[in-house]
Order: sequence, then structure tokens, then C-alpha cells
Amino acid sequence: MKALVYTEPGTLNYRDEPDPVCQSGDVLLKIDAVGICGSDLHAFLGHDERRPAPLILGHEASGTIVGGKNDGAKMLVNPLVPCGRCSACVSGRTNICPSRQIVSMAPRQGAFAQLLSIPEHNLIQVPGGMDMVKAALAEPIATGWHAVAKAAKAADRPLAECRALVLGGGAVGLSAALSLNAQGCRNILLAETNALRRATAKKEEFCTPFDPLDNNLAEPNSIDVVIDCVGANTTRKAAVGAVVPGGVIVHVGLMDADDGIDVRKLTLQEITFIGSYTYTMQDFKASVAAMHSGALGSLNWYEERPLSEGASAFADLLQGRSPSAKILLRPH
Amino acid sequence: MKALVYTEPGTLNYRDEPDPVCQSGDVLLKIDAVGICGSDLHAFLGHDERRPAPLILGHEASGTIVGGKNDGAKMLVNPLVPCGRCSACVSGRTNICPSRQIVSMAPRQGAFAQLLSIPEHNLIQVPGGMDMVKAALAEPIATGWHAVAKAAKAADRPLAECRALVLGGGAVGLSAALSLNAQGCRNILLAETNALRRATAKKEEFCTPFDPLDNNLAEPNSIDVVIDCVGANTTRKAAVGAVVPGGVIVHVGLMDADDGIDVRKLTLQEITFIGSYTYTMQDFKASVAAMHSGALGSLNWYEERPLSEGASAFADLLQGRSPSAKILLRPH
Repeated sequence: MKALVYTEPGTLNYRDEPDPVCQSGDVLLKIDAVGICGSDLHAFLGHDERRPAPLILGHEASGTIVGGKNDGAKMLVNPLVPCGRCSACVSGRTNICPSRQIVSMAPRQGAFAQLLSIPEHNLIQVPGGMDMVKAALAEPIATGWHAVAKAAKAADRPLAECRALVLGGGAVGLSAALSLNAQGCRNILLAETNALRRATAKKEEFCTPFDPLDNNLAEPNSIDVVIDCVGANTTRKAAVGAVVPGGVIVHVGLMDADDGIDVRKLTLQEITFIGSYTYTMQDFKASVAAMHSGALGSLNWYEERPLSEGASAFADLLQGRSPSAKILLRPH
Repeated sequence: MKALVYTEPGTLNYRDEPDPVCQSGDVLLKIDAVGICGSDLHAFLGHDERRPAPLILGHEASGTIVGGKNDGAKMLVNPLVPCGRCSACVSGRTNICPSRQIVSMAPRQGAFAQLLSIPEHNLIQVPGGMDMVKAALAEPIATGWHAVAKAAKAADRPLAECRALVLGGGAVGLSAALSLNAQGCRNILLAETNALRRATAKKEEFCTPFDPLDNNLAEPNSIDVVIDCVGANTTRKAAVGAVVPGGVIVHVGLMDADDGIDVRKLTLQEITFIGSYTYTMQDFKASVAAMHSGALGSLNWYEERPLSEGASAFADLLQGRSPSAKILLRPH
């Protein structure tokens, strides 16, 4: 098969690789589309010790089962492969299973390839009529959906009554804003410093994108729910500054781990600060259903490129040259 | 009246002061007992800019109404005086009312005195038969109760299934541990470095006190619910280290604001970190009911001293010479 292989920091090679051999419980999936995630960029730059080269990256995939009783079925990949037996797994929180495997992390190869071996119970059926390229947005959308579900559970009041602020307008930030809207919130600010991304978000017409470096629309102590999809020192400071007493911050991004939390405000003003990582299987299914129903809008904030041109797509993303919140690669 | 007046950092004067003049809505309360809080020590040392000298400190009080239609009624003081009209107040979260006043903070004098002027709706009736000195423990107990109520709401599973760790064995830490027990938790570790306080906690026989500097019984990633009643860099590090993936940290203490939060662990392991400040009126009433029912044990972890000896009580507390979790002062 053809695959885009991360061979050393800063280098991707589009080349022939052996077809994957399915382990017990796995099926073979012919990849239809696969998104480039911020974590792929992070690994590509050599910043992720969990993903040493050589490795096939990519985990946001849609595809078609090859062989077996479900041959030809159109599926989405949940890239988290949990143990299924620990207390996290049996309570539905498979995303924090301590012994989970992840597609694109050894021993599992990623989906920037024509074929992927994946446990059959990690696959979710694509609803009839859904475009297989657009369907690959489900994974980042599920990450945003999960963060919003956590915020909704922790908030004092329904999201319909809340003022919300999303920090970061990439695929996860945009998905969080769309999920807030789909879950009832009607007062959504989206902070994004990249003008191209702000323009993309503006088209969606359900939130107010703004440049926090230019004109910060989030007044201090005014926001009920903040979703930080960047996760940097500066965005944590912005989140804690903007949140109202008794409010909720959901922290999704993993940009840096350099403080930024005013623990005195958190304590005296009873802020809830919640870490959010990926999604559960239930969130993933709920996101696909919301995509299918139209509750998340047109979803036309991606662009398609052939997998063979993956290296230039990585370069465009790293240079901030893409107006799309997501680039989806097509291996066939 | 006689009062214990904080006149300058490090100095308390037991002296005559003018009787308080009741404002509209206030009643006059003859103080029966009043506890010394960590925040009183903090102010006494000159570390609380919200409490400049001269000031009468003290806010953990029981007393008897003097005059009016409820003359002679035995009451407890809720020292938080909220506005009653803001969105925090109307949703029951009076403790985070942005314009709340607090007994022992200007313009309100404190309860280290024979008399206190206090809004009548800030008073809670002492149940029949409850000792008026012991009753004054209700305020720190309500702080612990509130923190545990927040943990119970945020936790995935009932407290009866949770392993809990309380950091700090002063009055609030001990109250948090007692509240955990009263709310169903049966697996409670209490970390306290002071041997006298550990011995006091040991008598209660519902938790396992230990010295974290000697033999840390809290294994990494093993605790479902951590209640940090110290709030220092070291205890936050201990809390984040001990908590299980998906677990809850409730942060009550205000020792310092110097980081100590591993935001990467919080995110990747979906930890919920909740600030907890004092109590709502409902928590206060629930705590008094639990005290009265016996659900919080004997409550014999305090000692009484006359208000006139308040200065030496402060000195003993600052030197760690008191085995009691609480010293209650009696002005009459």
C-alpha cells in the first residue's frame, strides 16, 4: 500500500509500505479520508516522545471494510483502543483507560495510508447518505462535543442561559462552538488570532469570532463557560480572567503545561476547572448523529487533498496558510 | 462591651469597646462562643489586606438574641452577608455574591466580643438541647460539608464507592473527613503533619490519619476524591499526584497561590479541579442538622478558653501547641 511515513523530525515520505496484517479482532479498512490533527503536527516536529519515527501518523479516519462478513460497510474509526475491563472502561470512560492503545502510536500504525488494521468494535457506522470525506470530521467534532458535554454537566444552569467563550478556532475549537450551539447555547464568543480561521468561523453565523489580541470581547468575570482548545499559559490566563464566579472552564488543549492558573480566584470564586481528553464512544456516536441531523451546520470548513501531497499540507498548516479548520487527505 | 481587638500586626488587645449599634434588619446577639479560624491568624499576622487594623476579628459564632420579638433565642451566625439580589444569590450561591459583606471585615466588626450586630436572616436556630459552645463549630463544619457536597456532585460514582484523601487535619480538614463519612464514604485517608492533630483525628475512628512526610499512604493515581484543606503548592502537587484518572480535587485552602497544578495530567487524565469557598445557607443548615443527629461523631475536638485569654490562644495556635482542631473563646 501507499502511506505517508514520518521518518524523522520535519520529514514525511509518501512511499510503499507493507499492507497491515490484521490481529485477532481486527478488520482491514480501506481509508476514504483522514484528517491532519494538531497532534500529528506536534509529532512531525519531533515534540511527542510517545510517537518516535518511523511511524505512520493520522487517526481521524473514515473508511470501507475490506473482506469478512461486513465487507463494503462504510465506517468511522474511533482511534482509542481501550482494554474494556478496567474501572474506567466499565463505567464508559474508555478515553481514560490507563492501558488504552491509540491509532498512530506504537504498536498501532496510523491512518495516513491506504489501509488500516483496526478492532471491529472501534468502528462506527456512517449514516446512510453521509459523504465519506466529510464524515472524517467526526473525530475532532467528538472532541469538541465531549468538552461541551462536560461543561453542561458541571454548569449550574442550562447552556441556553450561559454566555460561552471558546479559545482557539481550529477544528476542535470550531467543533466546540458548534456543539455549544447544538446543545442549546445562543451566546458564543470564539477567540482566534488567525484571520483566515476567523473568516471561516464567521461563515457559520452561530458565534462571534474575534481577535483577542486586537479587541477582547470577553469582559473579565463575565463568561459562564470557557472551553480552552489551545491550552497555553496565555489562554489559561484568559480563561481564568474571563470566567464568572461559580463558572466552568473546560481545558482541552495541550499547547504547554506552564502554569497560568490563578488558584486563588479558582478557590474564592468557586471556579470548576475540568480536564477534557478526546471523547467516549457515546460522545463519538452522538457527534455523528448531530452531524447527520444538520445540528452542526454545513460542516463546509474543510478542504480535501490527495495523501500524496500530505507533506505540503503539513507545511501549509504549520505556516498558518490554510483558511480551513481541517485538511482531509485522500489515499485513493 | 469587652472585645478582643486586633490593633496592629501581631497584637491583640482585650479592652472596652462601644456596644455595636444595630443597622436596619440587624439584631443584637450576645456571643456565647466564637472559634479562632486560620483566616483570623492570617489577618493577625498582617497578611490579609482586606482586614486592616484596628478591627475586631472572629466570625465562627453562636449567641443569644438580645431584645426584639425573638429575645433569648439561641442562634448560630452565618457570617456571609450577601446582597440577596444578584444571579449568584438568587440561585442559592450566596457565598460567591460579588457584593457580599463578611463579619470581621469592614464595614462589619467581628465576633471576638460580647455583642455583635448581625442581620436577622443571617441567623440559624440552634436545635434544642445542643450545647451552645459546641454549636459554634458549625461554621468550619459547614465549610468541610460544602466541599464534600461539591465533590459528591462532581464524582462519577457515589462517595460510598470512593477512596478519599483529605489534606490537612485542622478544623476544616477534620470536618471534611467527618462530612465524607456522614455522606457515605468509608475509605478516608487524612494527611496531617502535626502529631497532636493526628492524635485528635485518630480518636474519631472513622478515618486513617497519617504523616505524609513520613509514610505517604496515598499511592499515586489511586484516590477518587481529594479535598485539599491546606491549599499550598506542596499540597496541590500531592493532590494532583494522588488523584486517579477521572477523579476530583476540591481545593479549599488558601495557604498560597504558587502553582503546583500539573495541567497536563489534569487534561490527559480528565481531572476535575474545583474551588470551594465557605458554604451556602443550605450547607450551613445541613451541617447543623448533621451535628445534631450525631452523624458527625462526638465533636469533642475543641477546647474552650475565655475571650480575655484570646491572645495566648492565638500564640498557641501559631506555635502548633494545641492538640485541638479548634479553640473556642467565651466572652461571658
